[in-house]
Amino acid sequence: MTQTINKIAVLTSGGDAPGMNAAIRAVVRACAFHKLDCVGIFRGYEGLIEGDFKPLGPRSVKNIINKGGTFLKSARSQEFRTKEGRKKAFEQLKKENIDALVAIGGDGTFTGASIFTEEFNFPIVGLPGTIDNDIYGTDVTIGYDTALNTVVEAIDKIRDTANSHNRLFLVEVMGRNAGSIALNAGIGAGAEEILIPEENLGQDRLIESLKRSKKSGKTSSIIVVSEGDQIGKNIFKLAGYIEENLNEYEVRVTVLGHIQRGGAPSCYDRVLASRLGVSAVDTLLDGKSNIMIGISHNQITTVPFSEAIKSSNDLDLELVRVADITSI
Amino acid sequence: MTQTINKIAVLTSGGDAPGMNAAIRAVVRACAFHKLDCVGIFRGYEGLIEGDFKPLGPRSVKNIINKGGTFLKSARSQEFRTKEGRKKAFEQLKKENIDALVAIGGDGTFTGASIFTEEFNFPIVGLPGTIDNDIYGTDVTIGYDTALNTVVEAIDKIRDTANSHNRLFLVEVMGRNAGSIALNAGIGAGAEEILIPEENLGQDRLIESLKRSKKSGKTSSIIVVSEGDQIGKNIFKLAGYIEENLNEYEVRVTVLGHIQRGGAPSCYDRVLASRLGVSAVDTLLDGKSNIMIGISHNQITTVPFSEAIKSSNDLDLELVRVADITSI
Amino acid sequence: MTQTINKIAVLTSGGDAPGMNAAIRAVVRACAFHKLDCVGIFRGYEGLIEGDFKPLGPRSVKNIINKGGTFLKSARSQEFRTKEGRKKAFEQLKKENIDALVAIGGDGTFTGASIFTEEFNFPIVGLPGTIDNDIYGTDVTIGYDTALNTVVEAIDKIRDTANSHNRLFLVEVMGRNAGSIALNAGIGAGAEEILIPEENLGQDRLIESLKRSKKSGKTSSIIVVSEGDQIGKNIFKLAGYIEENLNEYEVRVTVLGHIQRGGAPSCYDRVLASRLGVSAVDTLLDGKSNIMIGISHNQITTVPFSEAIKSSNDLDLELVRVADITSI
Amino acid sequence: MTQTINKIAVLTSGGDAPGMNAAIRAVVRACAFHKLDCVGIFRGYEGLIEGDFKPLGPRSVKNIINKGGTFLKSARSQEFRTKEGRKKAFEQLKKENIDALVAIGGDGTFTGASIFTEEFNFPIVGLPGTIDNDIYGTDVTIGYDTALNTVVEAIDKIRDTANSHNRLFLVEVMGRNAGSIALNAGIGAGAEEILIPEENLGQDRLIESLKRSKKSGKTSSIIVVSEGDQIGKNIFKLAGYIEENLNEYEVRVTVLGHIQRGGAPSCYDRVLASRLGVSAVDTLLDGKSNIMIGISHNQITTVPFSEAIKSSNDLDLELVRVADITSI
Repeated sequence: MTQTINKIAVLTSGGDAPGMNAAIRAVVRACAFHKLDCVGIFRGYEGLIEGDFKPLGPRSVKNIINKGGTFLKSARSQEFRTKEGRKKAFEQLKKENIDALVAIGGDGTFTGASIFTEEFNFPIVGLPGTIDNDIYGTDVTIGYDTALNTVVEAIDKIRDTANSHNRLFLVEVMGRNAGSIALNAGIGAGAEEILIPEENLGQDRLIESLKRSKKSGKTSSIIVVSEGDQIGKNIFKLAGYIEENLNEYEVRVTVLGHIQRGGAPSCYDRVLASRLGVSAVDTLLDGKSNIMIGISHNQITTVPFSEAIKSSNDLDLELVRVADITSI
Repeated sequence: MTQTINKIAVLTSGGDAPGMNAAIRAVVRACAFHKLDCVGIFRGYEGLIEGDFKPLGPRSVKNIINKGGTFLKSARSQEFRTKEGRKKAFEQLKKENIDALVAIGGDGTFTGASIFTEEFNFPIVGLPGTIDNDIYGTDVTIGYDTALNTVVEAIDKIRDTANSHNRLFLVEVMGRNAGSIALNAGIGAGAEEILIPEENLGQDRLIESLKRSKKSGKTSSIIVVSEGDQIGKNIFKLAGYIEENLNEYEVRVTVLGHIQRGGAPSCYDRVLASRLGVSAVDTLLDGKSNIMIGISHNQITTVPFSEAIKSSNDLDLELVRVADITSI
Repeated sequence: MTQTINKIAVLTSGGDAPGMNAAIRAVVRACAFHKLDCVGIFRGYEGLIEGDFKPLGPRSVKNIINKGGTFLKSARSQEFRTKEGRKKAFEQLKKENIDALVAIGGDGTFTGASIFTEEFNFPIVGLPGTIDNDIYGTDVTIGYDTALNTVVEAIDKIRDTANSHNRLFLVEVMGRNAGSIALNAGIGAGAEEILIPEENLGQDRLIESLKRSKKSGKTSSIIVVSEGDQIGKNIFKLAGYIEENLNEYEVRVTVLGHIQRGGAPSCYDRVLASRLGVSAVDTLLDGKSNIMIGISHNQITTVPFSEAIKSSNDLDLELVRVADITSI
Repeated sequence: MTQTINKIAVLTSGGDAPGMNAAIRAVVRACAFHKLDCVGIFRGYEGLIEGDFKPLGPRSVKNIINKGGTFLKSARSQEFRTKEGRKKAFEQLKKENIDALVAIGGDGTFTGASIFTEEFNFPIVGLPGTIDNDIYGTDVTIGYDTALNTVVEAIDKIRDTANSHNRLFLVEVMGRNAGSIALNAGIGAGAEEILIPEENLGQDRLIESLKRSKKSGKTSSIIVVSEGDQIGKNIFKLAGYIEENLNEYEVRVTVLGHIQRGGAPSCYDRVLASRLGVSAVDTLLDGKSNIMIGISHNQITTVPFSEAIKSSNDLDLELVRVADITSI
C-alpha cells in the first residue's frame, strides 16, 4: 500500500444520513486542494461493480452542503458480498486508475470495505455516516445530531396540542438494537417515558409509572418508543393496551419513520462531515488504510474497520438518570 | 339581543389548531381597544359550565401569537350537550356579568353555540379554528395553512432519502371525511399518488398506477394517504399489499398523527386569526349573534351557525387535475 | 397567433422567489401531459438572447418542488431592452422551433414580455413570481407567502430574547415602494410598530407612540421597518435617534436582507405555483397571449400584461386597523 | 459551607441563550427528586437584590424545555457590583432560607458569583449559558449549538438566491472578541470567506481572495463576518469597498443580530442543559461551591469560577484549515 495516490474515489452506502453530501464535498475539495483527481461512484458498491463513475471537481459539489440525502445515491449490493462481485469492483477501479477509496456509511459498509481492502490490498478509509450512532470508535456519527433535532422538533409540535386533558401520545423513533435516538431525543423533547431495547420496562411497569405521573399532577404524557423496544414493537397494540388499562386516557400514535433520515443537516453534522472528509484524504495520503476516521473528545481519531463494526450498545447510565430526574 | 355589551368572554373548543392563540389575543386586544372587559374561559364548554374564568387584559396575551395550541386549553364536554349543562353555563355567564361570547372551534363548537344562543338568547359569534378546513362559509379555517406546511416539511425530509432505488413511502395525514389536507399537501409535497376519501381509487388501480410510474422512469414514490381513505384505512396493511403485489419495492410507513395539530402558526394563520378576532368583537358590538365569521375572497364574511355546520366535502376538481398533471 | 403549439419554452427573470421551481416543474409536466416539447431557458432574457436552452422532460424537474431559488437561474438583461437584443432572442426561439413562452417574474419581466410579444407576434404568458406581492391582477404572487413566513420566523426568535427589560428591536424587511411584507409580517409577528412607505409616521410620532407603549406596561418592543420607509431608510440612524430620544431603551438592529428571497417554499406557494404553471400551458393552447395568469378569489384569472405592470400600492386599511388594534 | 442544603435558588443572568429554560427545568426537577425546595429568582442579580422570588415545583417548569429565552428573565445589575448591593442580595437569600444558588450565564455572571460566594461563604455553582462559547473549562456552552444552527439556516436561504450571477453576500454574525460562531457556522454554511477577529485578513487580501474565487469559476459568494472583525466592523462600509474594488459584483448585506440569541433550542442544547442542571444540584449536595459545571470529552466536569472567567480565544487551527480546504 505504498503506491502513490493520484486519484481517489468516494461513495456512500447503506441507509443515507444527513451530512453525507457535506462529507462528499469535503473529500472532493480536499482532493482538489492536494491536486488529486476525484471520482464519484453512484449507488454505493452496486455502482462500483457496474462502473457508474463520474469525475468530480470543486464546482461539482457546490450547493450540496445543505442538502439531506446523498447526491451519489446509496444502495445495498448483494453482489458485493460475493468474491466475483468484489473482483469486478476491483477491475473497475483499476480500469479508471483509481488509487484509493473513501466509503461513507455504517457497519455494513465497513464490513464490505474491510473484506475488499484485505482481498485486493486496495486502500480504503471509511467515514461513519448513519443516524443510528451505533459505530464503535467514534463519539458521534454523521447524521445523528440532525436526526435528534428532527425528532425533537416533531415532538415539540405534539406538545403544543398535549395541553388537552387526558391525552397520551406514543411516538415511535428509529433504533432497532439501540435506544440512543430515543434516549437523547426523549430527554430533549421532555418525554415522560422513554422505551428502549436496552431496558425492558415491560407493560405493567409502564402502566404503574403512568399512574404515578397522573397522580403527580400530569394531565398529558408523551412517550418516546424506540422501534426495537419489546413492548413498543407494535406501537398500535401498545396504544390499545394502555387505553384498556388506563381507561382515562385517549392514546394517539405517531410513527416518524423515514422523516428521521432526511432534512437539511445541522451545523454540527456539516462541520463534522467537513472535518472527517478533509481528514479522509489526509489519511490516505499518509499511506493508511482499512480504518475508519471518527471523532473522539472532539479530536479526529482513527479505528480499524474490524473494531468499528463491533457495534456498541452500552447504555449511557448517566443519561438514563437524567431522563428519570427531568421527567419527574 | 339589543342589550349593551360591556364584557365579552372567549373560549376555544374541540381539537386545537395553530393560530387559536392569535385569535384569542386579537379578541382580548379588540376588547381593550373598545374599552370592554374581557374574560378567558378555560377548557371550552366544560370550563364554561364550571366557571373556570380569568379576566384578560392586553398584557395577558403577550408572547402567545407565535405559540401553537391554545393557552385557554380545549376540551370536549358531554355535559354541555344536556339542557342542564347549558343552564349551568348560562348561570355562570350571568354571575360574571358576561354579555357575549366568542367561541373558537369547529362544527361541534358551533353546534353547541347555536343551541345555546337560541335557548338563552345569549349573543355568540364563532371563529373557525380547525386544521381540517371543513367548515362551510369560509374559504379557510384557522390552522389549516400551518397544518399543510407541517405535512409538506415532513415529506420534504422523506424526499431527501427517497433517492435510493425501489423505495415507496406511505405517509398518513389527517382528514377522516375529507381529503383536503391530503390533496393540497400532496400537490405541495410532489407526491406521486394521493389517496383521499372522496375518490376511491381502489387497490388494483393504485397498483396499476404505480406500475406505470415505474415504467415512466420513476425510481421511488411518495404516496400521501388521508386517514379516511378506504384502502388507506389500515396503512400498514396497505403497505403489505403493495409489497406483495409490486415486489420490487420496499415500502416504508410514516404516520404523522398529532404533529399536524401543533407547531408555530404560519404568518397566514396569524394574520387570519387576528383579522377574525378583531372582527368578532366588531360583530358583537353591531348586535349580531348566532353566526360564524369567516373569510371569503379575502374579505371578512359572516354565515349563520346553521350554515357553517353543514360540512362541505366538495372535491376541488381543478386541484385533482393539477395533482394528476404535476405528478406525471 | 393561431399557429399550432408544439414546443413551449419557460424562463425565470428578475429577482428570484420561492416557488419558481414549482412553477417551472408544473409547466414542464403540463407540456408532457399535453404531449408538447418543453425547453428551459437559463438566466432569463439574457439566456434567451444567447440561446442558453435545454430540453426538459418530466424527470428533469424531479426533486425541485421543495427548493428555493430557480434552477433555471435568473438575470437582468440590458440587451433585451434593445430592439437588437429582442431580435436575437426571437431568432433563437425560431431556430429551436419554439412556439410559445412562459415567463415567470415580476413587472420588469412582464414589461419585456409585453414589448416582445407585440413586436414579434410571439405567444407569451406570464406568471407572477416575486416576494413583493406588487403585481396588479393577482391577489398573491408566487413567493410572497414564503417570504412572510421567513420574516415571522426570524422575529419569533427575537421575541424569545425580548423578555429582557428595556430592549427595543428594529427589524428591516424588504419592500422599497410598498409595505405589504412589513404590514402582514408585522401583524403576524406581533410587532408593536410597523413602519411602511405608504404611511409616513415620522420620527416624532414614533417616539410618542413608543412612550405610550412603555406607559401601558410594555417592557420591550419589536418594530418592523420596511426598507422603503422614510424614517427607516437608514435603520442604524433610526436606532441612534431612538436611543437618544428614549434613553431608557437599548436598541438592537436586524437587517434580514436576502434571507427573505430564499428558503423552501410554503405549501401555499407550491400549490399556487403548480396551479398557475398548469394553467399557463392551458392558456397558451387556448391561443391566448400577452397576458399574465393570476389568482383572484382563489380562482385562476388572467390579466393583460399592460394591466399587471401598473403596480398597485393601495394600502389595505382593514389590515392597518388590525395592526393598530392587535398591538394595543 | 458544610451546612445542610434544603432549599436551592436558580437564576439566569447576562445575555440569554437557548437552553436556559431547559437548564432551569432540570435544576427544579432535580430539587424535587432530592426532596429539596426550589426557588426561581427573576431578572438575575437585580431580582436577587429585590427579592423577586417564586417557589418552583416540577409542574412549574412544564412545557418550557422547548422555549428559547429564559422564563426567569435576565438583566444586568449595576447594584450587584457594589458591596451594598451584594449585602442586600445575601439578606434576601437568608430571609427566604435559601441555602445555595445555581447561576446560569456567562463570564459576567460567574465573576459576580465568585465575589459573592467568597464574601458571604454562600454556596453557588454556575452553568455556562451563552451563545458565544467563550467560557474556559467547558467544551461547549448552552445555546451555542442552537445559535450555529440558526446562522446556518439563515445562510441556507441566502444560498438559494445566490445562484444569480455576480452576487456577493455579506452576513454579519455575533462574536465581539472571538470568531467561534463565524468559523463554525461559516464552514457549516459553506461560506467562501470567513472574517474573524483572531485572523486579520485585511481588505486587500480579501479582494485578492475574491478575485481568485471568481477566476476559479465561482459566480457568487457568501462571506460570513464576525461582528468583532476589524475590516468587517462596519459591514456596510465593507460592502461599499468591495463594490468599488471588485466592480463586477453587487454586494448585499444581512445583519442577523438578536435572531441568533433566540429560537427553540436544539436537541443537543436541551440534553446538555438537562445534564448540567441535574449535576448542579448533585454538586451542591456534595458540598462544593464556587465552581462552574461544564462538559469536557462528553463528561460532566467542574472548574473554579476563577478559571472559567479567563476567556479563551485560542483559534482552532484545524477548523481554519478545514474552512480553507472546503471553500476551495
